[in-house]
Amino acid sequence: MPTFAVEPLTKATARVLGAAGTPDDIAGKLARWLINANLSGHPSHGVIRVTQYLAQIKDGAYRPAERPRVVSESETSVVMEGGGAFGHLAAEELTIRLVEKSRVSRVAVGGIARCNHIGRLGEWSELAVSMGAVFLMVAGGPGMMRTAPFGGREGRMSTNPISFGAPAGDADPIILDFATTAAAEGKIRVARDKGVEIPPGQILDNQGRPSINPNDLYDNGVMLPFGGHKGYGLMLMIELLASNLVGDTITGEPQSPIGTFALAIDPDALGSGAGFAAMNDATINRVKQTAAAPGFDEVLVPGDIERSSRQTVAAAGVELPDATWNDVLASAAEVGLDPAEVNAIATGE
Amino acid sequence: MPTFAVEPLTKATARVLGAAGTPDDIAGKLARWLINANLSGHPSHGVIRVTQYLAQIKDGAYRPAERPRVVSESETSVVMEGGGAFGHLAAEELTIRLVEKSRVSRVAVGGIARCNHIGRLGEWSELAVSMGAVFLMVAGGPGMMRTAPFGGREGRMSTNPISFGAPAGDADPIILDFATTAAAEGKIRVARDKGVEIPPGQILDNQGRPSINPNDLYDNGVMLPFGGHKGYGLMLMIELLASNLVGDTITGEPQSPIGTFALAIDPDALGSGAGFAAMNDATINRVKQTAAAPGFDEVLVPGDIERSSRQTVAAAGVELPDATWNDVLASAAEVGLDPAEVNAIATGE
Repeated sequence: MPTFAVEPLTKATARVLGAAGTPDDIAGKLARWLINANLSGHPSHGVIRVTQYLAQIKDGAYRPAERPRVVSESETSVVMEGGGAFGHLAAEELTIRLVEKSRVSRVAVGGIARCNHIGRLGEWSELAVSMGAVFLMVAGGPGMMRTAPFGGREGRMSTNPISFGAPAGDADPIILDFATTAAAEGKIRVARDKGVEIPPGQILDNQGRPSINPNDLYDNGVMLPFGGHKGYGLMLMIELLASNLVGDTITGEPQSPIGTFALAIDPDALGSGAGFAAMNDATINRVKQTAAAPGFDEVLVPGDIERSSRQTVAAAGVELPDATWNDVLASAAEVGLDPAEVNAIATGE
Repeated sequence: MPTFAVEPLTKATARVLGAAGTPDDIAGKLARWLINANLSGHPSHGVIRVTQYLAQIKDGAYRPAERPRVVSESETSVVMEGGGAFGHLAAEELTIRLVEKSRVSRVAVGGIARCNHIGRLGEWSELAVSMGAVFLMVAGGPGMMRTAPFGGREGRMSTNPISFGAPAGDADPIILDFATTAAAEGKIRVARDKGVEIPPGQILDNQGRPSINPNDLYDNGVMLPFGGHKGYGLMLMIELLASNLVGDTITGEPQSPIGTFALAIDPDALGSGAGFAAMNDATINRVKQTAAAPGFDEVLVPGDIERSSRQTVAAAGVELPDATWNDVLASAAEVGLDPAEVNAIATGE
């Protein structure tokens, strides 16, 4: 598998996006966000997406020079519309505006309707936390409905992810980011390709029976919410917030299949002031100092794995499967670039 | 087991609370909230608590005539202090104030510090939804720390419950209400008393090993968060919001062991207007019409079980274990009432 240093790979990615009609400022930011997903240990949201985005530019679903617009705004709220723009742009702008509003109004809520893929939700919690805010973001709705509600056997819900971030003091911040399905579909696909079983509780077969055979998902099976009826309840809550609270009546059209809802809170909103960061440190330290259970090395907090991955991958380089990189080069050729030149930029040669 | 009609049991409960020094208006409301927990199928938060509350009045932790106070308030926020008052009162007032603020400001956040037991969280989501709001409430912090963080083997976290409510149109509202532990401690206790095993994933024994023997919890074992690392992440998020964001600096004292955080959002905050209720109906109908998996009769949504329980129990009467009712009568005697008279009120004789 080819391995790339971060800066050259970012430059090559931006070059490919640019050749597809993406203005330089957008291409540069998008390349950094994609590669940050690879660095964070979430390659499903990383460079692999370039091929998809270029195909979607070609078919008109993505308009790479477009920018998201603010539909409505108040002291405590922002509603954005992503349109044909890269969804990341709407997510970034929503995050920044909500954090700025929360500094004045203590709390602000917002949403994005009609939006392309916004990338890794944790990216926006990290951004909000770097600006000093407490932040919650959820995305969901009746999009790719491959997940059965608790007690059901048909796909009627999407993966509906949630992310939460809170600043700490001396400790690293808490950055939570997960899908409310029991497992990412990509991991079940990997197990199928390897010919190994998956843990119980992740899927049902096409008869609605629990299965540990990953092939069953691809034979009209369904995914399950994490954590039984509790995870299902959160998955449903996320659809109500992300899709129903945001999606409708901006243009009078039906709700967006997948919407985004976010909330920023000033750390001093309820009067805890600088004490909030200090108390978060105390919580984090208390939890991390728990003796590990058999089979575990240590207790982690949300955000630790991504931070650790970023250090490791940045040092070792971003490794991409041959197929992923060859697809990117093929996409580059389609928008008129010389694949050899793109490869040379990416390898820093 | 004695069985009581709702109104006489409410009257008897209020009488006992009143004899312990609770003003009539508070005793009446508290009795209704307690019995609503029994009706909703959550007897752990119901009449059984009277004995505990009277003991806590006796030892001074509860001051039954006290009322909670608003510590600080803005257009978008409320901070309350429960003090020695029944915690339910602070939760009710916080909920009402947040919903009223959210009608003007679109969103409002609040918290309660230094507060007694606030009862069933779903009660306050139901109240907020009946007033038309979208509502989130979480409670938690370093109180009764019998739950191990994911990967750990020592009790370092509390049960940290979450509740969410959203109004619908023709459909019943969504009312989510659960602890972020895998199981309620009370259910593990019941399994122990019956001598039956518990499902995997609920507890670790005192060596940190997974166990299905409920006795292991009571031999220095620990409870587990629901849903593995994802449920653990939510449990941690709840502590940061409920305890750390609210607890400190009101009086300069250390944080409250268990705090409460809540958020009210106007359904039109992000412009979906009346469409929100209609879209929630569509979501609820889509999910409920999912074909049931083997072993299930139907797909439910959060709130269905409590609504169904209220109908059934209201018709059949509130059944209390002998021990529970005898304890209430003994508590009544301690505050100068004739147990026979209390029993006569409760049975409507």
